[in-house]
Amino acid sequence: MVTGEKVSVDPSIVDGILAGYDSENPGTRGNLYRMLMTGRLAGTGKLVILPVDQGFEHGPARSFAANPAGYDPAYHPQLAIDSGCNAYAAPYGSMNAIAHEYAGKIPLILKVNNHDTLVTERDPIPAQTSSVKDALRLGCVGIGFTIYPGSTNWRAMYQQLREMSEEAREVGLAVIVWSYPRGTNITAEGETGLDIVCYAAQIAAQIGAHIIKVKLPTDHIDQDAARKVYESENIPRATLAERVSHVVQSSFNGRRIVIFSGGGKKGDSAFFDEARAIRDGGGFGSIIGRNSFQRPHDEAVKFLGTIMDIYAGDKD
Amino acid sequence: MVTGEKVSVDPSIVDGILAGYDSENPGTRGNLYRMLMTGRLAGTGKLVILPVDQGFEHGPARSFAANPAGYDPAYHPQLAIDSGCNAYAAPYGSMNAIAHEYAGKIPLILKVNNHDTLVTERDPIPAQTSSVKDALRLGCVGIGFTIYPGSTNWRAMYQQLREMSEEAREVGLAVIVWSYPRGTNITAEGETGLDIVCYAAQIAAQIGAHIIKVKLPTDHIDQDAARKVYESENIPRATLAERVSHVVQSSFNGRRIVIFSGGGKKGDSAFFDEARAIRDGGGFGSIIGRNSFQRPHDEAVKFLGTIMDIYAGDKD
Amino acid sequence: MVTGEKVSVDPSIVDGILAGYDSENPGTRGNLYRMLMTGRLAGTGKLVILPVDQGFEHGPARSFAANPAGYDPAYHPQLAIDSGCNAYAAPYGSMNAIAHEYAGKIPLILKVNNHDTLVTERDPIPAQTSSVKDALRLGCVGIGFTIYPGSTNWRAMYQQLREMSEEAREVGLAVIVWSYPRGTNITAEGETGLDIVCYAAQIAAQIGAHIIKVKLPTDHIDQDAARKVYESENIPRATLAERVSHVVQSSFNGRRIVIFSGGGKKGDSAFFDEARAIRDGGGFGSIIGRNSFQRPHDEAVKFLGTIMDIYAGDKD
Amino acid sequence: MVTGEKVSVDPSIVDGILAGYDSENPGTRGNLYRMLMTGRLAGTGKLVILPVDQGFEHGPARSFAANPAGYDPAYHPQLAIDSGCNAYAAPYGSMNAIAHEYAGKIPLILKVNNHDTLVTERDPIPAQTSSVKDALRLGCVGIGFTIYPGSTNWRAMYQQLREMSEEAREVGLAVIVWSYPRGTNITAEGETGLDIVCYAAQIAAQIGAHIIKVKLPTDHIDQDAARKVYESENIPRATLAERVSHVVQSSFNGRRIVIFSGGGKKGDSAFFDEARAIRDGGGFGSIIGRNSFQRPHDEAVKFLGTIMDIYAGDKD
Amino acid sequence: MVTGEKVSVDPSIVDGILAGYDSENPGTRGNLYRMLMTGRLAGTGKLVILPVDQGFEHGPARSFAANPAGYDPAYHPQLAIDSGCNAYAAPYGSMNAIAHEYAGKIPLILKVNNHDTLVTERDPIPAQTSSVKDALRLGCVGIGFTIYPGSTNWRAMYQQLREMSEEAREVGLAVIVWSYPRGTNITAEGETGLDIVCYAAQIAAQIGAHIIKVKLPTDHIDQDAARKVYESENIPRATLAERVSHVVQSSFNGRRIVIFSGGGKKGDSAFFDEARAIRDGGGFGSIIGRNSFQRPHDEAVKFLGTIMDIYAGDKD
Repeated sequence: MVTGEKVSVDPSIVDGILAGYDSENPGTRGNLYRMLMTGRLAGTGKLVILPVDQGFEHGPARSFAANPAGYDPAYHPQLAIDSGCNAYAAPYGSMNAIAHEYAGKIPLILKVNNHDTLVTERDPIPAQTSSVKDALRLGCVGIGFTIYPGSTNWRAMYQQLREMSEEAREVGLAVIVWSYPRGTNITAEGETGLDIVCYAAQIAAQIGAHIIKVKLPTDHIDQDAARKVYESENIPRATLAERVSHVVQSSFNGRRIVIFSGGGKKGDSAFFDEARAIRDGGGFGSIIGRNSFQRPHDEAVKFLGTIMDIYAGDKD
Repeated sequence: MVTGEKVSVDPSIVDGILAGYDSENPGTRGNLYRMLMTGRLAGTGKLVILPVDQGFEHGPARSFAANPAGYDPAYHPQLAIDSGCNAYAAPYGSMNAIAHEYAGKIPLILKVNNHDTLVTERDPIPAQTSSVKDALRLGCVGIGFTIYPGSTNWRAMYQQLREMSEEAREVGLAVIVWSYPRGTNITAEGETGLDIVCYAAQIAAQIGAHIIKVKLPTDHIDQDAARKVYESENIPRATLAERVSHVVQSSFNGRRIVIFSGGGKKGDSAFFDEARAIRDGGGFGSIIGRNSFQRPHDEAVKFLGTIMDIYAGDKD
Repeated sequence: MVTGEKVSVDPSIVDGILAGYDSENPGTRGNLYRMLMTGRLAGTGKLVILPVDQGFEHGPARSFAANPAGYDPAYHPQLAIDSGCNAYAAPYGSMNAIAHEYAGKIPLILKVNNHDTLVTERDPIPAQTSSVKDALRLGCVGIGFTIYPGSTNWRAMYQQLREMSEEAREVGLAVIVWSYPRGTNITAEGETGLDIVCYAAQIAAQIGAHIIKVKLPTDHIDQDAARKVYESENIPRATLAERVSHVVQSSFNGRRIVIFSGGGKKGDSAFFDEARAIRDGGGFGSIIGRNSFQRPHDEAVKFLGTIMDIYAGDKD
Repeated sequence: MVTGEKVSVDPSIVDGILAGYDSENPGTRGNLYRMLMTGRLAGTGKLVILPVDQGFEHGPARSFAANPAGYDPAYHPQLAIDSGCNAYAAPYGSMNAIAHEYAGKIPLILKVNNHDTLVTERDPIPAQTSSVKDALRLGCVGIGFTIYPGSTNWRAMYQQLREMSEEAREVGLAVIVWSYPRGTNITAEGETGLDIVCYAAQIAAQIGAHIIKVKLPTDHIDQDAARKVYESENIPRATLAERVSHVVQSSFNGRRIVIFSGGGKKGDSAFFDEARAIRDGGGFGSIIGRNSFQRPHDEAVKFLGTIMDIYAGDKD
Repeated sequence: MVTGEKVSVDPSIVDGILAGYDSENPGTRGNLYRMLMTGRLAGTGKLVILPVDQGFEHGPARSFAANPAGYDPAYHPQLAIDSGCNAYAAPYGSMNAIAHEYAGKIPLILKVNNHDTLVTERDPIPAQTSSVKDALRLGCVGIGFTIYPGSTNWRAMYQQLREMSEEAREVGLAVIVWSYPRGTNITAEGETGLDIVCYAAQIAAQIGAHIIKVKLPTDHIDQDAARKVYESENIPRATLAERVSHVVQSSFNGRRIVIFSGGGKKGDSAFFDEARAIRDGGGFGSIIGRNSFQRPHDEAVKFLGTIMDIYAGDKD
């Protein structure tokens, strides 16, 4: 396990998080523990995960041309280690290309389904591109799985997730779910609307996610039925921290780790503000792909380091 | 193993290529090694593979009438040996007809899925026509599998490939993926557009291909989102060698063997120019079907010999 | 991963050891790496493992009465962590009693077969008391398995080991073999005779052990056929370091990690001398049970610390 | 759930006991909880279980002639309910005869292996007479399994137990092990010797028992190697309470529920004294068969009631 | 495929040998072909195989002390390549230690059963130490299996061989059988008696061996019933070449490859005479372990080279 500079750690934090997973077997709990105890944020209860599935999702040039070192699949796990990330996530091919060298050095998450952008689908459903058996063979701590709540294909995805997560849990792996609302049932604005994001987090938790990844929500409320409640109950949503807090609440009130994706390109200071909001709202951290690996290595390490400082409370 | 005239060989070349496959078991590595150490190009790190699936894909007359010796399935593996190819690929029937005689004499690749042209499909998906068990029984070094990224049937193909490649890898076979963009989502020009070809190569690598076969790309960029990146990053694509280099980069930066198909009929000198571009761009070789077996045996041997000379550096 | 005070580490040491395991899948390699990178000796290439199967093997009073804290199965993994061990090994019941809390905190090795001393057998064979599935569920890095070469029941044991180790390797676990010569074919003196111990190590390596545990050998040679060779070839065996070196040589010339058990009670200085001999002979470390957990916690931590100092080269 | 007169209950007692089973899945934990929360002793952390396998083990007349109502398998679960027992245990036939009526009314334990006395074996091994599937179908909370440590057939029994308990745990059942030392390796006196009983309890715990049933030990020490330790460490064993305490210690220091059988016929006051010793030594209760069902119903209810009063602390 | 200096080759020789295997599937034929076309003797129809299972069979010191380089499992496949052997055979551990590097470089034969000499058995039966699945994963061309005809355990061995060879043939592997008469039914002299050796070869052929390995026979006839026929039919057996010829005849009259082991230490010229007799009697070659790897590398290469010269007809 490669670790960065250690922050001071209160052991009860991680134990407190794991208490939410008491029904899981020791194997799964151990793998969650390993992620929580790796890297710069080890023991803080916060996580920053480096995911690199963009080669599959957006194509190689759009993913790696900005920093061509990233065409090499070995670049990314090394970046994850150098910057002190808690884990590295990738699809089968990228993972297989580096696991012989990196298994054991940093927690690996096998992204077992993927969607490319050669086909545009209004109601997407990913393809299953690897298996739980692959994850064990490659020495991974867990599997990553994307669902698109709101897609007319929701049933098939939820059922695939259920089957793979059952299989994963039996062999002691953790299940990380990317939950992205999308489809004819969801407006573009709705995809990041607070009610929809919270609903997507809840669904992931219900189907068995151990770690949930959603986008940072706006204050938009998309569903009429939901809007009535948000208004009658005066659910605070003006600040991003309030909205993060509501997502955490919606993810079993903090009994499931929920982390946030950074989304599109933006200025670094906007990014750092988001990290502060995640921290202040009680979120568990970030999953940051393009915004880290598309800049030069040393800049990425510095950029991720600042985010980790914010999470660790070493920086306002 | 039948070998042609040996070129001078630097053992570190093949070892270097195999280092990209360190996570594979010794069986798969051994079969990749066998292909890399067979024929005229043994040890050079370059491959020329003879594929004969046109009887299935285009029908017998379109495939073999130009050189009727090719109606006989035994003609082709012998041509592959006589010309010093690294391997011979064919569908089940052709392979089964000759394997009793040729297994062990030249690496055999069983093409396990196929599509015919009696049915025209805008969004094609091949039929699975043989199995991993067949490949073992017939003494093959690997399986060949076609995917059509961009087809609305992409998901089923990717999942079939995932399952068969997992099965193949477990028993020590290599997986060769023909990745041909095609479907309602891809324009005719786009099928060989640089961005699309690179994307198709990346997808094949991600799902687990050990060897990737794509078409030589044009300088056309098909996707708007990609075009922005090609332009902003000034990715060189004026020459074919530059484009080959970009495909290799997109295939895990050289950690996966990527070879190119010759495409349609053209003059021999155009062909040789393409081989030079593949060589100069760092490509790993060619898969040449129609352009070799549709001419008389001795001409084909000479034609392939010239291409191999180019790859081996014995000819400019 | 809990670590003690770090010693200065040369990363090439662990990479060098892992090179002997290149044929293993990344999962197994990752688990070996985790053991080598945990605790006080992380990165030194040396291991001290705490095994507690004596409750099963010798009964509870003989095992724990000297330090009654040890009746509690949670005492031992905590001792392993506090003293900076690389791993903790125990049978199913003890492991299951603590895995919910300790999985992920220290590498766990599930001892999957056991023998009690309610039945005395001249030619022993253990009972299989847990499974590879259990090991995954409990979050273990590997399985431990005892064989008794020389027992007339050798065949059944070897075959059980073969089956379980094949199953374990497929899911990325490591296999640790306790190889103890015993049976009607072996004299009491022979059980620790140099030729016999080396033979037992070789057998464990041949059946597929990733880590081999044997007793420290005496200079006795038990088999006539072997004695001739030891004499004619002048194999050095006067010092313990020379004998350790010969065991390492017999374990694929250092391509397999071989560690030594301390055996019966003795004075601490004798123990430290043995550690020096293991270090000087190129052994990989120790597995120390009774001599650590049968003394009070703080004394045990100090005792193990001295041994680790010797291995780390921080103490002569 | 039929309960007797409730005693005042401290909820932390049962939670404390369940903490020893944190690695178990919620199903198994739930079934342990149900037993601990049933009957007169619900919530006290004590159990009295009624087992009726004597029809199989000793034949019907020896078992039921003294109180012929007991020939009817429905007599016993009703007695268990009427007397406020925590659970009722029986072999397949007896259970199957009554489960249609009693499942859900009192926790049922299916005794899945049995031995009859038509065959006398020096080194016994029971026959497997029912399955985990049977236990689920009959609505049982767990399976009961007998092992005879010390029998030369130990290995087969341990391995059967391992397999059945793995299967039982996966479907959320509890595993209750009757651990009775017996065989050519154990003297008659040794069968109830303190060292042997403790060893038998330890073995049951190691193979995966959730509840262990042993005989009350005498102060005899049977094994020479053990005697040395009992003497050197001055392990107290003069009183029955001290010996019970040592058995509990030997069963993972209280992390496993251990209950005691009454053994042969004796006067009721002797029985009550034993219950006091079990209580005072920290034992978890009794399993009482012949001494209850071989007397008339109302006497049995009264007899068991007195024992429960002692356990509940309502009676000295 | 590494090859030595090529001898002039008549392709019809290998085709003629393969005609004996017409019923085998192409995979098995291809693997036989690969052995026949590898190394110094490629294409001659002769084979020299290097087997190194002595570490398991005789213990490490007796095997490797004479040439300590041999303690390293990588020494042997390299020696096999350097000396131009057709194949290398070893047990699981030795093979696994080197397959990542050597698979594909020389045909590998996994020795799937083994016997050690810590247990002396009058009627031996080896332990199964690896599987057909292992052989595929490690990239082997076949499995090696020892039977001891004449052992009272003959039935179990023959049945194990039948099962494993059926499994091996289905996946295209070759089956090499070490057939060594031994047991209470065979006198010491009988073990190498002509009638017994021929009988052992016949049995191996009957159970499905593709390649048979026996010891060179003496002119002793062990069985009375056989002696009558040898005498009445005047079967020539005075010279070693005549006896070899009779063994070949007994192995389906040349339709099965039969090779001979050199047996114990002897002078090199005696060895070369044996090779001449094998050649002149129509034998297919040798399997030479101790006599090659127990001498220094360059001497071994020279020694094996001389034997190959004899087989190739380049030397009288």
